Amino acid sequence: MAAPVISPEIDGLIQLLAKLPGLGPRSARRATLHLLKKGSSAMEPLARALTEAAARIKPCGICGNLDTEDPCHICTDPRRDASILCVVEEVADLWALERAAYKGRYHILGGVLSALDGIGPDDLNIAGLVDRARAPEVTEIILATNATVDGQTTAHYITDRLQECGVTITRLAHGVPVGGELDYLDDGTLTTAMRARRPF
Amino acid sequence: MAAPVISPEIDGLIQLLAKLPGLGPRSARRATLHLLKKGSSAMEPLARALTEAAARIKPCGICGNLDTEDPCHICTDPRRDASILCVVEEVADLWALERAAYKGRYHILGGVLSALDGIGPDDLNIAGLVDRARAPEVTEIILATNATVDGQTTAHYITDRLQECGVTITRLAHGVPVGGELDYLDDGTLTTAMRARRPF
Repeated sequence: MAAPVISPEIDGLIQLLAKLPGLGPRSARRATLHLLKKGSSAMEPLARALTEAAARIKPCGICGNLDTEDPCHICTDPRRDASILCVVEEVADLWALERAAYKGRYHILGGVLSALDGIGPDDLNIAGLVDRARAPEVTEIILATNATVDGQTTAHYITDRLQECGVTITRLAHGVPVGGELDYLDDGTLTTAMRARRPF
Repeated sequence: MAAPVISPEIDGLIQLLAKLPGLGPRSARRATLHLLKKGSSAMEPLARALTEAAARIKPCGICGNLDTEDPCHICTDPRRDASILCVVEEVADLWALERAAYKGRYHILGGVLSALDGIGPDDLNIAGLVDRARAPEVTEIILATNATVDGQTTAHYITDRLQECGVTITRLAHGVPVGGELDYLDDGTLTTAMRARRPF
C-alpha cells in the first residue's frame, strides 16, 4: 500500500476509508478502486453527503441523538410519550428500538462503564439522565443497555443513581429470541427464559 | 433504515456507503455513526479526498492504470523495462504485482471474458494489447490473469490473438504458495506443483 506506484491522491483515499469500522486495508483498497472505476458519479455525491453531514448533523443537547435539529425531532415531537425514557448506549441502539415500535423518548449514554477502557460515570451522560429523571412528567426509565457484562454493570450503576428520583425502573425482557432454536441458545439465556416463563 | 427517525442527511450517507463493496447496510450504519461521532475532523478530509480523486485521477490511455497523469508514471518511467508487458485483469492486480518487485510495464484488461456476464473481447482492452505487442521493443508478454476459469479462458484467448505478433508469451508459475501447508491445498494445485517440480 505504501508502494510509490499508487498516487498520493489514491493512497490518501485508501488510508481514510481504512479507518472506517469494518474496512481493513484490503477492503479499503477494493472500495477505493470501486469508487475510481465509477468515477465522479460515485465520488461526488459521497463527498457532498459527507460535507453536508459534517456541517448539519449535531448531537441533541437533551438526549444525545444525532439530528439536524437541537433538540432533536424525537425530543420535540409532541406525539411521543414524555413520561418514558429509554436509556441506550449508542445512537445505533436508538435506531434499532425505533424499528420496535417504541413511542417514548430516549437518553443516549454515549457508551458503557468499563474499568478496562478507563470509562467512568463522568465519561457518560449519566448526570443528564438523573436531571431528566427528576422532571415531574417522567414516570418510567427503561434500561436498554446491551446484555453484556459492561452493559449490565452500567444498568446497575444507573439504578443506584436513580434510586432517589422516584421513577419506575424497568429493563428489556431476557428470553428466547423470536425465531430462535433452543439447541443453539447459550445456557444463561435458556435459564433466564425458563425462570421468567409466562402463562400460555 | 427507512425509519423516519434517521434524518435524510444521515440516511443519504448510509445509502452511499452501503454501495461500497464490503459494506452492507449494517456496516454502513456503523461506519456512518463512526464518522458522525468523530465529526468534521473525520468527514471533511474524506470529502476532500473524494473530490480531489474525482477531479484528478484518470485511466492511463496506454495501459489502463489509474493515475493523475496520462500516460501514467509507470508507462513514462524510463527505468522500467519496456520490453516486457504484464497483462492483468484489474488495477488491484497491478498494485499486487508492484509488491512483487516486477520492473516491466503493464496492460490492464479491465476484467475477464465471461459468457455468463456477457463480457466479450470487445468489452476488454485486448485490441490495445495487440497493438502494443506489435511494437518492436516488446519481446515478452506475461499473462497474469487470475487462476480462475474465466481468467484462464481469457489468457488462452489472448494467446491466440497474440500468435502473429512474434512475442514470447509466458504466465505466472502455478504451485504451492510460499508458507502454504500441503494438507490444505486443493488437488489441482498439488497435481500442478508435482508435475512442475524443480531440481532442489
